Amino acid sequence: MITSNMIRTITVEIPSKPGSLGKVTAAIGKAGGDIGEIKIMNIGPLSTVRNITIHCVDAGQLSHAIQAIKEIGNGFCIHSVSDDILHAHAGGKIHMASRANINSLDDLRRIYTPGVANVCQVIKDDPKQAKYFTSISNTVAIITDGTAILGLGNIGPVAGMPVMEGKAALFDRLAGISGIPILLDTSDPDEVVQTVKHISKGFGGILLEDIGSPHCFEIEERLKQELPIPVMHDDQHGTAVVSLAAVISACREAGVSLKNSTVGQIGLGAAGLAICRMLMAYGVKEMYGLDLQPSALDRLEGYGGTPLHSLEDLMDKSDIVIATTGVPGLIKPEMIHSGQIILSLSNPSPEIEPENALKAGAIFAADGRSVNNVLGFPGIFRGALNAGAKEITYSMLVAAATAIASCTKSGELVPHPLDPKVHSEVASAVERCTLHAKDLIKVM
Amino acid sequence: MITSNMIRTITVEIPSKPGSLGKVTAAIGKAGGDIGEIKIMNIGPLSTVRNITIHCVDAGQLSHAIQAIKEIGNGFCIHSVSDDILHAHAGGKIHMASRANINSLDDLRRIYTPGVANVCQVIKDDPKQAKYFTSISNTVAIITDGTAILGLGNIGPVAGMPVMEGKAALFDRLAGISGIPILLDTSDPDEVVQTVKHISKGFGGILLEDIGSPHCFEIEERLKQELPIPVMHDDQHGTAVVSLAAVISACREAGVSLKNSTVGQIGLGAAGLAICRMLMAYGVKEMYGLDLQPSALDRLEGYGGTPLHSLEDLMDKSDIVIATTGVPGLIKPEMIHSGQIILSLSNPSPEIEPENALKAGAIFAADGRSVNNVLGFPGIFRGALNAGAKEITYSMLVAAATAIASCTKSGELVPHPLDPKVHSEVASAVERCTLHAKDLIKVM
Repeated sequence: MITSNMIRTITVEIPSKPGSLGKVTAAIGKAGGDIGEIKIMNIGPLSTVRNITIHCVDAGQLSHAIQAIKEIGNGFCIHSVSDDILHAHAGGKIHMASRANINSLDDLRRIYTPGVANVCQVIKDDPKQAKYFTSISNTVAIITDGTAILGLGNIGPVAGMPVMEGKAALFDRLAGISGIPILLDTSDPDEVVQTVKHISKGFGGILLEDIGSPHCFEIEERLKQELPIPVMHDDQHGTAVVSLAAVISACREAGVSLKNSTVGQIGLGAAGLAICRMLMAYGVKEMYGLDLQPSALDRLEGYGGTPLHSLEDLMDKSDIVIATTGVPGLIKPEMIHSGQIILSLSNPSPEIEPENALKAGAIFAADGRSVNNVLGFPGIFRGALNAGAKEITYSMLVAAATAIASCTKSGELVPHPLDPKVHSEVASAVERCTLHAKDLIKVM
Repeated sequence: MITSNMIRTITVEIPSKPGSLGKVTAAIGKAGGDIGEIKIMNIGPLSTVRNITIHCVDAGQLSHAIQAIKEIGNGFCIHSVSDDILHAHAGGKIHMASRANINSLDDLRRIYTPGVANVCQVIKDDPKQAKYFTSISNTVAIITDGTAILGLGNIGPVAGMPVMEGKAALFDRLAGISGIPILLDTSDPDEVVQTVKHISKGFGGILLEDIGSPHCFEIEERLKQELPIPVMHDDQHGTAVVSLAAVISACREAGVSLKNSTVGQIGLGAAGLAICRMLMAYGVKEMYGLDLQPSALDRLEGYGGTPLHSLEDLMDKSDIVIATTGVPGLIKPEMIHSGQIILSLSNPSPEIEPENALKAGAIFAADGRSVNNVLGFPGIFRGALNAGAKEITYSMLVAAATAIASCTKSGELVPHPLDPKVHSEVASAVERCTLHAKDLIKVM
């Protein structure tokens, strides 16, 4: 699998003859570049101009690809190499938009003074009305301290803002939710909890994002306890939901019962521990875990899992192995036994390439390329907000994972992340689960 | 002047005959109702259905108006009375929108993982790039603790949210700024300052809104000192900018030199004190002030004004009188001397009706109906953000007031608040002023 950290758009003019494009794509491929979209910019009698998006591991590979195109020969000409991603981010990716027209003094008097005073009064007299006459119940704060941004680590909240804006853009496009990035200049749990509590009245939910371990655990637990609105750390539970969906799909493909299988989780960071908890919540009875950190093993045991102390032992005892270590090639082919399911989810390089795991006897193997948490968080919050949920429970998360798995086509691990059906199914499943829980409470 | 706290839309069917509409409007007028827009909903051969927006002081006046229409006679029929303002607020007035299309996996890889990592890296390597590749430099936090919402007082931040959303909607429509309401659950200056500082990295500016006196002074002063971005309390300085613009227009109308006049400010609350400071920043040499609170008089003296101790004394000494007391009828006609300019700005009921002030000898008189701070804050922040200003200075605010006055037509006090020219002129004036100041610093 290719690590494509660099995406560029090459504008290239090529002869209008059959086979010309093939020469260009072959040249890029030979240099190791991965081709994305190809768009026609201009068609002339002699030549055609195309924008070709290529994904490269680094600047060296990019210049090899460019050199390879230049060397094809006469009539092949590169006009520009542009950084479309930076262009796509110019001015930021989000904007707070008015839902109201303001074209006349009457409009102004309606949405601003003096008319707005009526609405304030209505809410003052009956605070529940804020749900209907403000955006609060449709707004989720996307909160980060910038300590664990993607795979980049502790780069600070401002450098992490493009990720937060991406989350907000996805909230809008996939679930109609208003997502507000909040960049914290502190990672101290007391200060984070105090700050979030002080601003929490403006939000219907809290998405914690790219907050490092172990302070993410305390921050999430305290906010969940102290706030009457849904709080979720996406890097733990969002990732775990999509991982559970992938495991469910893998078991269905392989004809294996997940609940009756022993599952081994390699790597008990924030995501790995959350996957263990999610699997146990789903009904897995024997959950093994392995990590170099003794504190992580203690946490696993606290959650009801069984810590193991060697990779060989875990590989030996587990019907299903899930790895989220970030260590490429950690799982050797000789460790795999016949009939095992292997999900090596670390991005961009897995613990073992799926084809090698299959060769070594695995009944099903996949990497984490398609396990994108965009499949989870938009629908989970849509469902929770629709239901007016006060928290996000494991039942809701398991319902979300099951909904994602039910939308997955045979032969695939997860659905297409932009399929609107997935997000509405996840939202419905979460909402039904919340309302069902409310009924149960009434009955009890 | 009518206090119109209640706005309703009456759907009324009236005969398609000349004079019919006149009967309806006369009936509403006789009951004391103020008519806003009238829209035709349906025209038939015999009857026409119209939506008539009426502004009433209270429910009693509304039912009088309805009764009066019913009593007109045959063919006049009220179909519904609806609360359009509540309808206009359903679901809230703002939404965080994606500026990017997300229609393909390539789009997703561009604005989210893996592409977004590139942008994070660019900002990490050169933090100044956040200005260009995130929305931060175009985003203003609209911060309230809900202690002084409009004329409603301390109704809490959630009940005040419709005002904050209105501000955000106006930021979007009038200045292309992304405004984010932040509702604080604390009014303690230490907690407010700490909280705002902890979240400030996500914003290019801070608009403090409807924060009560006197804690608004400490909060604003400390945030201005401690944050490297523009901070402005709209109820003080936004209001003062528009008031100064009104005073400049009034002096122009009356042929009076503002800088050479003595000015008396009655009422030294947050807005009144800010007006005094703004007038002195503009160049007024003798500034008198009056308030029941000794601490307010001390503040005025600290800012360079002259405290007075009786209304009669102030009225006697001032060429121009500005009142922001909230006390209707405070200024008696016999206090006014010939040639005075009287601006009684309290809403909805002024300290003296302009016509009475004119009758008593004033050369120019106006109330505060049109003095709407929507004329100020959008352009002020647009200009400050464009210039990358680190603070909002009195020079910038005076420049904004002068720009508003320069857009005011002869015979009017301020321009139409939705005239786009005003906002762009204010923005340009503030931006020029900031850049000029930067040049000066370079020269010195």
